[in-house]
Amino acid sequence: MDISLDDFHNWWIYFLTRPNRSEMISMTESCREIPIKDIAPEGISPETVMSWSRDYYGPKELRERIIESQSYEDLTTDNVIVTTGTNEANMLAALAALDAGDEVILEMPQWMQGYAVCKHILRAQIKMLYLKEENLWKPNVEELKDLVTPKTKLIWLCHPNNPTGSVLDQNEMRAICEIAEDCGAWILQDEIYRNLEWNNVVSPSAVNYYDKSITAAGLSKTLGVEGMRIGWLACRDKAFVEKCNAFRIYSTLTTNLLGEKLATIALQPKKFKELVEAGKRIGRTNIKLVDQWIREHNGCISWIPPGGSYNTFPKYHYNMKSLEFCKRALDYKIIFTPGGAFPGGEGHIRLGVAIDTESLEQGLRRFDAFLTSLKQI
Amino acid sequence: MDISLDDFHNWWIYFLTRPNRSEMISMTESCREIPIKDIAPEGISPETVMSWSRDYYGPKELRERIIESQSYEDLTTDNVIVTTGTNEANMLAALAALDAGDEVILEMPQWMQGYAVCKHILRAQIKMLYLKEENLWKPNVEELKDLVTPKTKLIWLCHPNNPTGSVLDQNEMRAICEIAEDCGAWILQDEIYRNLEWNNVVSPSAVNYYDKSITAAGLSKTLGVEGMRIGWLACRDKAFVEKCNAFRIYSTLTTNLLGEKLATIALQPKKFKELVEAGKRIGRTNIKLVDQWIREHNGCISWIPPGGSYNTFPKYHYNMKSLEFCKRALDYKIIFTPGGAFPGGEGHIRLGVAIDTESLEQGLRRFDAFLTSLKQI
Repeated sequence: MDISLDDFHNWWIYFLTRPNRSEMISMTESCREIPIKDIAPEGISPETVMSWSRDYYGPKELRERIIESQSYEDLTTDNVIVTTGTNEANMLAALAALDAGDEVILEMPQWMQGYAVCKHILRAQIKMLYLKEENLWKPNVEELKDLVTPKTKLIWLCHPNNPTGSVLDQNEMRAICEIAEDCGAWILQDEIYRNLEWNNVVSPSAVNYYDKSITAAGLSKTLGVEGMRIGWLACRDKAFVEKCNAFRIYSTLTTNLLGEKLATIALQPKKFKELVEAGKRIGRTNIKLVDQWIREHNGCISWIPPGGSYNTFPKYHYNMKSLEFCKRALDYKIIFTPGGAFPGGEGHIRLGVAIDTESLEQGLRRFDAFLTSLKQI
Repeated sequence: MDISLDDFHNWWIYFLTRPNRSEMISMTESCREIPIKDIAPEGISPETVMSWSRDYYGPKELRERIIESQSYEDLTTDNVIVTTGTNEANMLAALAALDAGDEVILEMPQWMQGYAVCKHILRAQIKMLYLKEENLWKPNVEELKDLVTPKTKLIWLCHPNNPTGSVLDQNEMRAICEIAEDCGAWILQDEIYRNLEWNNVVSPSAVNYYDKSITAAGLSKTLGVEGMRIGWLACRDKAFVEKCNAFRIYSTLTTNLLGEKLATIALQPKKFKELVEAGKRIGRTNIKLVDQWIREHNGCISWIPPGGSYNTFPKYHYNMKSLEFCKRALDYKIIFTPGGAFPGGEGHIRLGVAIDTESLEQGLRRFDAFLTSLKQI
């Protein structure tokens, strides 16, 4: 099969391999990085035997913790598979839901995996549902109605959204599910940033609203444990989950034991809330800081404050492509992700606030110097 | 996409969910299970930050250790991707090498992933190269010559073989590579059991013999750490490796940090040899025990002693399907895998010797009682 990397990943490979990267401040971080001791103060016992769980869906206790901590309604452990991150959950769901030539609707901008999987691996017919700044980066339900046809097999969402931070409310989720139900389409929602809502109302999980909804989620972003590689897939349709599991058996077979153990501890509902809140405290401080900074740079830069996630998607008021903007920013030792790496995102940058406040302040000072160097429109 | 599980995995799900499984002795174990302390006596520091390596191919030091410990010739770290087990390496290589309708030759019996991936996901044209007991479960090079055509895109091997334990020597590997080269096909060899050769001569790695060879391997079986989920893919063709990496970015994105750390320790060449040897000591004892037991049951059961791996593939001399044989064995609280779960394996059972010798002895006593209960042909 042919495949090519999208502009998002090409950009990441580009900046990760800059010779002076260690001197740079990443202003595009989408998650924190916490130590094992924040989850398990005593660490992992060296006596731990490195076997697998002998359950293809992942350890049952972990699946129980997922259902409880995420407030998934009417699900049993047969509705959940533990996966190697949210990314794998997205992939399995797409393989199980789609065939070559099927029509799929992708919200854009969003995490670029859906586009690549649908285009290169599944060879599906892609239609874009563009999120627009004037609509607070939320999907326009009327536009979605116009896009779907009886051939639409899947609607792929991502909220809290990467890169814009937009969050759906219950009514919006219901309206989207009704449209999907009318045409018989699956909904796949990438919920990797769920629980990171800045109004403290946990956003709707697709799996709670519609029988043909698939939730793909994980701990990487909410807790700051990307190296743990623990995510999950949940769906009310057990036959669909079983099908996803078959695809997993032929790809990664099972998740990693130490990640499973740490996740089982981290997802104790009280512990989970505490860990999420620890991150959100930093996020709130940082968002306030950036908001103040943007107000002070009125005319150069503007934004829709994020509803959730550590991602924000400011618009810069300079007449240049986002890739050029971000390459120039590297000269000032600050890293953003070009908005143009996401369809519908040109003219923006993805600014992530998941770094410590001191580094963010230093980064904003560098950003100041960078903007000063640019000729304002 | 449609998919269905193969008979191997259906059998495993069947016996893993038996209510009395805890009373059973698994006589089909393909790997040991060692604790963290065997690799890292001090364990993993609770200060370890759960980030990712920021290198899409996996940590560079780990890739260096892989190349050195496995004696891969003429490779740099750009030729190796760390993967979520050997299984993911197989999957990525198949996606990158094949298109729908392409001709692929699968050695059979072997690990059933190749069959499922080629049939359901890639919709390739599958031809079987049957390994036969009379040829010591090795491929017949003349038969392979007859099977290949100018349309053959991939030859998928597995040695040391699962389930038969057969090992290729250098001349056999060279002969197969010459055939592949003549028709321009890739070779993908699943080498998950490499380093577990009972004559103590490490078997040839495909990647050392041909520019279009792909080696898929890992630590699960050699060390007994299936829950670590660390494997790798190696190939001389850097563009091919880059393509595999793109497929990985859209599936699991990266491997787990704690597995990467433990693997980096375990693959220090001296340490790696010690860890492998510790397993082989038990394997040697157990194979001798089974060999003696089979001699004592001459007429009921026979085998080709395995050249490598903890897998063996005895033939039973009873007129019944292997699934029935294995189901009846469950009544005697012993678990085998039916040979019929692998094309070309009917009339055999996969007997794995990767359990402690005491359990194996107890299992053989139960096997004795089971055979007594069967009417001999």
